[in-house]
Amino acid sequence: MIERIAIVGTGLLGASAGLALRAAGFSGSIAGWNRGAEQGQIALEMGAIDSVAKDPIEMARESQVVVLATPVFAILDWMEKLAGVLGPGYLITDVGSTKGQITDAADRLFNRAESAGFLPGHPMAGKERGGAALGDATLFHGAVWLFTDKPDWKRSSQSDALAQSWRGWVGAMGSKIIDLDATRHDELVAWVSHLPQFVATAMSALLEDAVGEAPELKDVGGRGLREMTRLGASPFSMWRDIAHTNSKAVEASIFALEQRLAHLRENLRTPELRDEFDKANRFRRN
Amino acid sequence: MIERIAIVGTGLLGASAGLALRAAGFSGSIAGWNRGAEQGQIALEMGAIDSVAKDPIEMARESQVVVLATPVFAILDWMEKLAGVLGPGYLITDVGSTKGQITDAADRLFNRAESAGFLPGHPMAGKERGGAALGDATLFHGAVWLFTDKPDWKRSSQSDALAQSWRGWVGAMGSKIIDLDATRHDELVAWVSHLPQFVATAMSALLEDAVGEAPELKDVGGRGLREMTRLGASPFSMWRDIAHTNSKAVEASIFALEQRLAHLRENLRTPELRDEFDKANRFRRN
Repeated sequence: MIERIAIVGTGLLGASAGLALRAAGFSGSIAGWNRGAEQGQIALEMGAIDSVAKDPIEMARESQVVVLATPVFAILDWMEKLAGVLGPGYLITDVGSTKGQITDAADRLFNRAESAGFLPGHPMAGKERGGAALGDATLFHGAVWLFTDKPDWKRSSQSDALAQSWRGWVGAMGSKIIDLDATRHDELVAWVSHLPQFVATAMSALLEDAVGEAPELKDVGGRGLREMTRLGASPFSMWRDIAHTNSKAVEASIFALEQRLAHLRENLRTPELRDEFDKANRFRRN
Repeated sequence: MIERIAIVGTGLLGASAGLALRAAGFSGSIAGWNRGAEQGQIALEMGAIDSVAKDPIEMARESQVVVLATPVFAILDWMEKLAGVLGPGYLITDVGSTKGQITDAADRLFNRAESAGFLPGHPMAGKERGGAALGDATLFHGAVWLFTDKPDWKRSSQSDALAQSWRGWVGAMGSKIIDLDATRHDELVAWVSHLPQFVATAMSALLEDAVGEAPELKDVGGRGLREMTRLGASPFSMWRDIAHTNSKAVEASIFALEQRLAHLRENLRTPELRDEFDKANRFRRN
């Protein structure tokens, strides 16, 4: 059913989507465009896309499905640009990390009978470093791919059929689909994705100040330290947009952890410490 | 030179030490004792020890080197008990996670010409779950093994020779030895080992409260969440002793992270956020 896909942003996620579609048997065309030309060239050489577009708007017009695979603010910009260009025969989808503002924009700009369709999506997959060169056909295997459709959206039959077909390809790429409300999405990922990232960043920055001068002593920390700071390598460019577009939920989760740490610190020598360990043990068991 | 080793506490570290000694070519005897008999039996069946002792004091008397592989408070208890029993022909060493109180006790009870020698040690290796069954001959490969000898200790020539020999076996087990002052040890591990543990515990306990009701949604977090909470499975029994015997340094490191998280939270939408990411990136690069 889908024969022509255009990927805007051929970094880690865009290139991985191209590779995963091919691995899942997609035999149509996959065009790609990237703001910095080098990433497009790498994606082409890897076989993630089969052509690099000169003009992204023209590329979108010639496709049926446009996948926006950039940080969140750029996704919002592309939504504005494409709303004036694409009509009912198209589906736009995205892989952005926050869904509130994107779903609101989709509500305003798309998903009417006379407009293109927009399916807000978020694969829970990634690496601590970005770039097409790390693209991986198996990146979405076993991952959850979240969608935040609004129940009252009425897409044209063409873009609705493309949305159903895209969901099929997401399954074929090995992901498990979960549908949920955009606000609930942003609250949930604040806990299970954004909080771990900002904690790893804060801890890595703190340790750089505390023991950064003695790099050989980092070995002392072992696997636990490496794991707890791995996400410290994550790029600011992506996380700036997440911090801006999910501030309220992220602030709440960070503040809750500050309070939890203070509670634990004040109870290092009391029986309360056992309760915290018991509860943490329970989280890992379930 | 060492021909008879006794291991007090045949859990994960004790059993791994036995297995690693054998793998490194130690051909002497390895006796073991554990407060709960089951762990001793498992260690015996795995080949980590070649006999289970009935009486730990008798076992210590019949050995040359006694390895204390229990949580810290039990190590301190054994030090008191063994001080009255063992003389200059013996070396006692340990694998305890904090070294201040243990090194002070060693100063008070051992390391004189007429007493047994005590070499305070700490291999930076472990798993998030304990027990002999997880014992692993390669656990210490590539790990750092810290020693906190005091420069003014004057051991008997016999126990000094045993200490040199034990250092040789630690190297043969694949570990890299670093010597440092006990106070500096406790401060350093507060940053690179205890802080990561208590953060993983606090975050796991918090998430159990926040999203524990919806266990299928934990999948949403992916690898980052799994890594950042893996240590949440760690046993309270071991960490209680660490919390009690390194409270001051642990409190300072947790408090510093609370402040760092508050700073990050207050700057989610300011350019300061970039500085934190840059610093965190630097920690991971070095």
